Amino acid sequence: MLRLRMAELIGNLLVAQSGGPTAVINSSLAGVVQEAGRNPCVSRVYGGRNGILGILNENLADMGRERPETIEALKHTPAAALGTCRYKIDFKKKPEKAARDMDRLFQVFQAHNIRYFLYAGGNDSQDTADKIHLEAVRRGYEMRVIGVPKTIDNDLPHTDHCPGYGSVAKYNACTVMEIAADVSSMATDDGSCCIIEVMGRSAGWIAAGTVLAKREPGSAPHIILLPEIPFNEEVFLARVSETIRALRYCIVVVGEGLKKADGSEYSADKSRLDAFGHPLLSGAADALAEVVYGRLNTKTRTVKLGYAQRSAAHYASATDAAEAAACGEAAVRAAVEGKSGFMVKIIRRGGAKYSSTTGLHSLSDIANVEHLLPRDWVSEDGFMPNEKFIEYARPLIEGEVKVPAEGGLPKFAVLQNKSVPRLLPART
Amino acid sequence: MLRLRMAELIGNLLVAQSGGPTAVINSSLAGVVQEAGRNPCVSRVYGGRNGILGILNENLADMGRERPETIEALKHTPAAALGTCRYKIDFKKKPEKAARDMDRLFQVFQAHNIRYFLYAGGNDSQDTADKIHLEAVRRGYEMRVIGVPKTIDNDLPHTDHCPGYGSVAKYNACTVMEIAADVSSMATDDGSCCIIEVMGRSAGWIAAGTVLAKREPGSAPHIILLPEIPFNEEVFLARVSETIRALRYCIVVVGEGLKKADGSEYSADKSRLDAFGHPLLSGAADALAEVVYGRLNTKTRTVKLGYAQRSAAHYASATDAAEAAACGEAAVRAAVEGKSGFMVKIIRRGGAKYSSTTGLHSLSDIANVEHLLPRDWVSEDGFMPNEKFIEYARPLIEGEVKVPAEGGLPKFAVLQNKSVPRLLPART
Repeated sequence: MLRLRMAELIGNLLVAQSGGPTAVINSSLAGVVQEAGRNPCVSRVYGGRNGILGILNENLADMGRERPETIEALKHTPAAALGTCRYKIDFKKKPEKAARDMDRLFQVFQAHNIRYFLYAGGNDSQDTADKIHLEAVRRGYEMRVIGVPKTIDNDLPHTDHCPGYGSVAKYNACTVMEIAADVSSMATDDGSCCIIEVMGRSAGWIAAGTVLAKREPGSAPHIILLPEIPFNEEVFLARVSETIRALRYCIVVVGEGLKKADGSEYSADKSRLDAFGHPLLSGAADALAEVVYGRLNTKTRTVKLGYAQRSAAHYASATDAAEAAACGEAAVRAAVEGKSGFMVKIIRRGGAKYSSTTGLHSLSDIANVEHLLPRDWVSEDGFMPNEKFIEYARPLIEGEVKVPAEGGLPKFAVLQNKSVPRLLPART
Repeated sequence: MLRLRMAELIGNLLVAQSGGPTAVINSSLAGVVQEAGRNPCVSRVYGGRNGILGILNENLADMGRERPETIEALKHTPAAALGTCRYKIDFKKKPEKAARDMDRLFQVFQAHNIRYFLYAGGNDSQDTADKIHLEAVRRGYEMRVIGVPKTIDNDLPHTDHCPGYGSVAKYNACTVMEIAADVSSMATDDGSCCIIEVMGRSAGWIAAGTVLAKREPGSAPHIILLPEIPFNEEVFLARVSETIRALRYCIVVVGEGLKKADGSEYSADKSRLDAFGHPLLSGAADALAEVVYGRLNTKTRTVKLGYAQRSAAHYASATDAAEAAACGEAAVRAAVEGKSGFMVKIIRRGGAKYSSTTGLHSLSDIANVEHLLPRDWVSEDGFMPNEKFIEYARPLIEGEVKVPAEGGLPKFAVLQNKSVPRLLPART
């Protein structure tokens, strides 16, 4: 990895958020803004609105004009306060457009004397950060680029875990625990099944996290279906029957990207694609419910948490929120120290009591690499994460973020979002 | 209404829970057990397991053997700690079975010297309580029967509102607020729509309650579809388009029982019936999403909160939990004072600051009557509850129940559930 010169670089810092939001991506933003505010090398702190798209459109917000209390309140505010996007600079499919985009980005960087560029996002966004870093080197434009990890999917490699994951795991486990209490209290002789669909297109980390609701061997969830493990309908139905016979109810958690034995998605609508060309998924739970009801004649209900799970700041993990802020702070420090082309990673310290620190990892190793749940962290039958996973995940959901209330509902930060005056002609 | 003699009646109290659980039905149970424990007329407090079904099976729990801390902890514990049921004593459809059931119930009441019977539930359960009250009078068996209101649907008549409603309204409004933050932060030029399905088969109180998330005219929810208002697809689609043009996103909340103009359910699977003969509903949100995507070609996602919304004790309303407990206490006091055949109701006091007290209303006026959202509490176009509704609902979500945490997840009460020794032969 290239290292730019270690000398002091004075200029402006631009931070942007990308991809699907999380409950704590704004906590990283707060960490960036606060750390940058303390650092004499950073003149001004700008936010790119709607990620890379806002930079292309020279649509920048002046973070220095926000009140410090608002920045602090970002630590309990869900979604992407600066807005986010799923815009991809795709040199393979659209080389000319990508080249034009790159030119424009660097016009904006130069016009606003951006010397530090921090991008918070998941796999695709780290890929974008890597491309921008390499382009800066190629052009000899002195700018340090650091990725800030963010994804509920927990699928970035080389980091112990990703900011956003602890909160989704906490909220989903709590929800499973509450639903299980409800369903079990309704369970009379005829039995019932409840199937809860959670996010996770390729990686099963989110579905796996609900095992933390399991406080006793018989308690829910009873079956967790992971996208990494090919679905076997017969074995699944037998397990549901068995559970209902024993307990009179069965709680199933399914990751939306559950796969059949042939690798195709259990419930995919391939006629619709998202901006990255992935098929849109919906209804793994509904597809399973039809089978459970149809084959077992068991009352079956579904829950689809969807966006609720990744925005549930009212029940975010304090550990996660603190680590997210620490990743933002570490990104600023790394950039100011002269690093570029790295993503901040979380390193788990040893010891009986959980603690973590941050480190750096080369973006080129991270971009577009998906870190899946290890097979040996799941029971042999594939239906339940095992003790190795639980030991890993348990500390990540510890602590509750304190969210102030107003009229019985959370009071979230609202940025003033003052625009930085435009210096360039409009993007063509 | 018949009033049994006012003289002191000394005997045992039996409490049971019925119908769909709520986040605070256990708070009512705590109120009953605590108030009964303070009253010298009540010798022992028993719980019927799984409602009336447990009484028929002489399956009683000895609440006196629970620790006081456990009873107190019920105030933050979701679901029905005693178990619940949807068992109906149906003299119209099954008169012989109903008569046998009644005989059996009174055998159990007599065998265990039950002189106070409290039943927490919604419309169907209050009907059961009414029948038991009338039967006690007919048989000359001295037992006082009081209904404790409970339903997230908020559709019991003659009470200002129902315990359970404030908590579901709070959780759902919070969820809508969080999802809206997420979706709006993702909204770029192509626009997107998110449709959130909430409970409510006939009454729109639950869907309406999400209006409390709306802090500014442009904020979500943008459209609320109520089961009481016949659905007009064209007008709906025009409103979605208009909202997306203005804001680039649109948040729709739909009550599961949305009706077409002909009164049929927008998304009902009539081939499946629940124990009370209602068609099972599912997928109003999915049905709407198909239309929005199909007709407007707009990215559309759905969320189906299902059981999560009624069991979300981690974000229950403190006002609701306190009123639920107060209803339980009031039921005991009324019974001991000689009342029978009544349901406790909540009375809103006047004054600038919200407060409530309890009263009694004859069960015969309540059983099987559904209280729907008044038409003049909804905007003329039918898409949004108005100020009258907001004034009514706003105080009900105030305050957060403090739930202790253990390992990052809520710590709920678990009853020891010691059985009362059986005195009768098994039910035939």
